[in-house]
Amino acid sequence: MARRITILGATGSVGRSTLDLIERQGEGAFEIVALTANSDVAGLAEAARRVRPERAVIADEALYDDLKSALAGTNIGIAAGREGVIEAADAGADWTMAAIVGCAGLTPIMRALDGGGVVALANKEALVSAGAMMTDAARRTGATLLPVDSEHNAVFQCLHGSRAEEVRRIILTASGGPFRDWSLERMREATPDQAVAHPNWSMGAKISVDSATLMNKGLELIEAFHLFPVEANQLETVVHPQSIVHSLVEYCDGSLLAQLGPADMRVPIAYTLAWPQRMATPCTGLDLAAIARLDFEAPDLARFPALTLARHALTEGGAKPAILNAANEVAVASFLAQAIGFLDIAAIVGDVLAAYDPPTPATIEDVLAIDAEARAVASRMTGKFRG
Amino acid sequence: MARRITILGATGSVGRSTLDLIERQGEGAFEIVALTANSDVAGLAEAARRVRPERAVIADEALYDDLKSALAGTNIGIAAGREGVIEAADAGADWTMAAIVGCAGLTPIMRALDGGGVVALANKEALVSAGAMMTDAARRTGATLLPVDSEHNAVFQCLHGSRAEEVRRIILTASGGPFRDWSLERMREATPDQAVAHPNWSMGAKISVDSATLMNKGLELIEAFHLFPVEANQLETVVHPQSIVHSLVEYCDGSLLAQLGPADMRVPIAYTLAWPQRMATPCTGLDLAAIARLDFEAPDLARFPALTLARHALTEGGAKPAILNAANEVAVASFLAQAIGFLDIAAIVGDVLAAYDPPTPATIEDVLAIDAEARAVASRMTGKFRG
Repeated sequence: MARRITILGATGSVGRSTLDLIERQGEGAFEIVALTANSDVAGLAEAARRVRPERAVIADEALYDDLKSALAGTNIGIAAGREGVIEAADAGADWTMAAIVGCAGLTPIMRALDGGGVVALANKEALVSAGAMMTDAARRTGATLLPVDSEHNAVFQCLHGSRAEEVRRIILTASGGPFRDWSLERMREATPDQAVAHPNWSMGAKISVDSATLMNKGLELIEAFHLFPVEANQLETVVHPQSIVHSLVEYCDGSLLAQLGPADMRVPIAYTLAWPQRMATPCTGLDLAAIARLDFEAPDLARFPALTLARHALTEGGAKPAILNAANEVAVASFLAQAIGFLDIAAIVGDVLAAYDPPTPATIEDVLAIDAEARAVASRMTGKFRG
Repeated sequence: MARRITILGATGSVGRSTLDLIERQGEGAFEIVALTANSDVAGLAEAARRVRPERAVIADEALYDDLKSALAGTNIGIAAGREGVIEAADAGADWTMAAIVGCAGLTPIMRALDGGGVVALANKEALVSAGAMMTDAARRTGATLLPVDSEHNAVFQCLHGSRAEEVRRIILTASGGPFRDWSLERMREATPDQAVAHPNWSMGAKISVDSATLMNKGLELIEAFHLFPVEANQLETVVHPQSIVHSLVEYCDGSLLAQLGPADMRVPIAYTLAWPQRMATPCTGLDLAAIARLDFEAPDLARFPALTLARHALTEGGAKPAILNAANEVAVASFLAQAIGFLDIAAIVGDVLAAYDPPTPATIEDVLAIDAEARAVASRMTGKFRG
């Protein structure tokens, strides 16, 4: 029976890779329930004409007419607005790609989890800011959360359903970013152009800066805590500049399993699409002899304080991870706008975490309110750092 | 319910490691059905007094009285001789460690497989010389063959029950041995002392020489063919001097899983003991930052022709793998006795494979006859190479 698929965020990089894999399977392997996009009408309409979803939804309400005329002559249902996206998440798919960026994804993801199917998660904020709510919802409805992020997907592959008592440690690898071997003095002067030059993956500016500060790995520690059956002190990071080993699991017997792969997001996406089996992809594996060398080193917490901030947020729990994430987004945007220095990013995040201490959120609305307030606090803080 | 355990070859390195793991589990976790040894009466008696098997068997018939007096005052059953070992393999264990070295292990292993339980296989000859018979027997009786060898155990862990069509390649790692970066001219003059100096594992002289010629990896290719759901052309080797990554599986989606671990045979043995779960061991995992670097390179088939010989034996099938193994044993013994040079080992094996071409063996008796004749041919061949 064809799997019924919805892609939330169909025009971004993950959405397009998902569509690529689906289209390679040929007609009949999948039925597309819904495609959604934020504002890229042309991209959404083009994808919809190819894979013929039951509905296409554009989050920006003002673009309803544009989408309607772009899909004129098809029998594809059209909707627009945040409510339209939420309804699309609830339209009966048994496999949902949750690739909406940012906190805008939280409500649709909760709705998809309520459906009880498989939810492939490519949105960091969901687990960082509302991890307990997400995993509670999955437990309650029987939904399966499959991580798309290469590191967590790697851990998921290595764990393969192991019991908590069998796992000693989970080790997330970090590329170390472009400043891996820079001195603190040099990092202080780092420009946005230098920070977004990620050595291994081609990514957006925000996540590239997170990779340069190692905040990306810090956020991933928090995600891993929610996804996998371990305590915070069983989560570790190791710097691995080649980004070939995507992560590892150490078992209670002393054995480690690692997942390796090319820098192609279709590999983890295909794993979530075919799970619990595997599907063929055009992605070539690795030529280890050509790669020749894999390096590992301990992360330098003095030069990359974001890792420590994230670990504290994880340990303290409550609203702290949501605040960490929101403050970091504001600080990174400020850095990209050349309003603050590179080292100020972590400093601002630390200050916001110290200054703002709301109670533990109980609902997605609470999380969104904390997110908004943390951004406001962070914006005020960045003023203090401006030269 | 306590697992009923038999250890065939209880006094060798693998047998002792197995006993160590069992004893750490404490009373009641396992019941010991039988322990066997070849000739080490003292070692066998000491182990038997500790773990109290139902019976202890010494393969060398002349040592019956010695074993009897060594176990005087216990209620442990005593037997001696090859028949005694075969009966021990058939005494109702539901988990058997098959750690008897050489072709002497074939009949006991077949008997253990007939019992339909789990057979942990630490004997190379069984799969190399009689692979099809072993796997046929396991299929027929419902027995499970679990590889103990670190490479095959790694593959087994990475495969985790995957279907044949999900697997693209299996990649066995090879340390490259002590002559990895030697010139052919230098290898020609290599002494037994130089050949047995294995960089990573402390092993016996025979297997150390096999590691130096890469014949060990060639034999492992043949074993892997019988153990795993792949064709011969899906099996590859890569040289990895640190021996940290024990092997890898590449899947049809482009993802690779690797198993890594310390150079401690208790890790793979524990995996077979606890399978399909895992048990805690005292083996510490890996500190990747301290290891710092993993290297990979393609094996040099010009300097290590044993790999090509093994691949041909695998592709031709029939009696060839058994002949490869037998001829190699004779040639290695000759090299260790300083009767032939290091490069003569592969030359002799190649000559024996070309000279002796019996029909495909149908029974273990056929295999034993081919083994004996191949040894005789190889012994005659070595005469030609003596300086």
